[in-house]
Amino acid sequence: MRRNITGFSNPTVKFLRSLREKKLRRREGCFLAEGLRLLTDARESGRLPETLVMAEGREAHPLLDTLEQAVLDAGGEVIETSEDILAKITGKENPQAVCGVFREFDTSLAGVDRHAAPIWLVAQAMRDPGNLGTMLRTADAVGAGGLILLDDCVDPFSVEAVRASMGAIFTQKLAVARWEEFLPWLSGGDGQLVAASLREAVPYRGAPYAAPCFIMVGNESRGLPEEYELACDLRVTMPMKGRADSLNAAVAAAVLAYEVLATLEG
Amino acid sequence: MRRNITGFSNPTVKFLRSLREKKLRRREGCFLAEGLRLLTDARESGRLPETLVMAEGREAHPLLDTLEQAVLDAGGEVIETSEDILAKITGKENPQAVCGVFREFDTSLAGVDRHAAPIWLVAQAMRDPGNLGTMLRTADAVGAGGLILLDDCVDPFSVEAVRASMGAIFTQKLAVARWEEFLPWLSGGDGQLVAASLREAVPYRGAPYAAPCFIMVGNESRGLPEEYELACDLRVTMPMKGRADSLNAAVAAAVLAYEVLATLEG
Repeated sequence: MRRNITGFSNPTVKFLRSLREKKLRRREGCFLAEGLRLLTDARESGRLPETLVMAEGREAHPLLDTLEQAVLDAGGEVIETSEDILAKITGKENPQAVCGVFREFDTSLAGVDRHAAPIWLVAQAMRDPGNLGTMLRTADAVGAGGLILLDDCVDPFSVEAVRASMGAIFTQKLAVARWEEFLPWLSGGDGQLVAASLREAVPYRGAPYAAPCFIMVGNESRGLPEEYELACDLRVTMPMKGRADSLNAAVAAAVLAYEVLATLEG
Repeated sequence: MRRNITGFSNPTVKFLRSLREKKLRRREGCFLAEGLRLLTDARESGRLPETLVMAEGREAHPLLDTLEQAVLDAGGEVIETSEDILAKITGKENPQAVCGVFREFDTSLAGVDRHAAPIWLVAQAMRDPGNLGTMLRTADAVGAGGLILLDDCVDPFSVEAVRASMGAIFTQKLAVARWEEFLPWLSGGDGQLVAASLREAVPYRGAPYAAPCFIMVGNESRGLPEEYELACDLRVTMPMKGRADSLNAAVAAAVLAYEVLATLEG
């Protein structure tokens, strides 16, 4: 179905705006992704929005035509609206000309096939949506299987996290679990749990990484709880030459992930 | 001098609040840093705030006493105020119990001593204050000399960038320059300019890095201009196993910087 919306008070506009709030996203089971590039990544990964919202007077683009047709073919809805309303929906002054509403994915740990990839990233109590999205992007780059979120992490379906993932939200498996659930799951099969640590650790370069390798980073302020570090199969140290004793969490995950990749590819 | 401020409309409160805006920071030549940890890092790096602002009813802390005394000894000003006013100054609902006003540093390229460190980070047209601060933090961790900002970067003295630097703003040399100024400066002495690139590049692992090594990353959306890449002494590729063709800029800088560090330390 295709229709035009002109009023700010239209219920669909209100619904779309509400997806910027976590509570309402959760209730609806939907999230918002913006921009032709992100939506094209989604389409090419087999994910189509249920609703596609496009600005009137946008520039024509063959990828946008392809996207629109795919959404209509799949029984989805296409909405045309003004740039002002699109700005209101996305909360950005200069919104991209298109955004889409996606159904949230299954994020159960049971859905993770650990043998599907040699590397998995794990984030514990991550608070920053930019860091979370960046970890998804890094996971995609190193050929990881996905990102497992432990304990109380920021919502991976927030507009900021989706944006920072640069499309990796559509290609990487995402799972959400408590530590008490994750640890028995991990022990129930192959898997090496690795974290950067200052406790009885070996240098991160040349460490005996093994697939499937689960690289875990902790909360931005507090790092990993001691118990989590002690449960690791491998603790590694990274050089810290300056005053600080830690890296940004997404940066630490990336430096480790590239090292693991190099080791596994030998 | 030590004094107490109780009114929201006090001119000093207005001045402090104004430091959240780039234009006014520039005019005053000052910036704001928050939190006891950051201010202690600053003090230990030989940087004291001209004005220290503390919340009434804060918990006593020996590091805060040391800081206060150091500021008073240096002829600075110490202000006590309410938590509400502190929240208004920092723009955060739960502000830390202390913040300080620092004089901006000299950011001229002439102030960079390239032989002072084996690694330097260079960011071109970086737009995200979190990325900029994260690069400073990474620079500190790898023992770099500092961060050189090319062209139109976000303000390194914004509250967000200072916060993300985790104190590295006080330990790393910061320089701001145009490309047209940077390139002749670099050619005027030792220095290897390195960037990740898809053009005629060698694998980033095992590449012939040499100190002083300048690791350059480009704008978050557009990457580096072609001309900048072609001017590099060394272009390297990093594995991209997924759909994306690039990493987050601060992540790319960190993965490269750790690789350069490992190579130089042999």
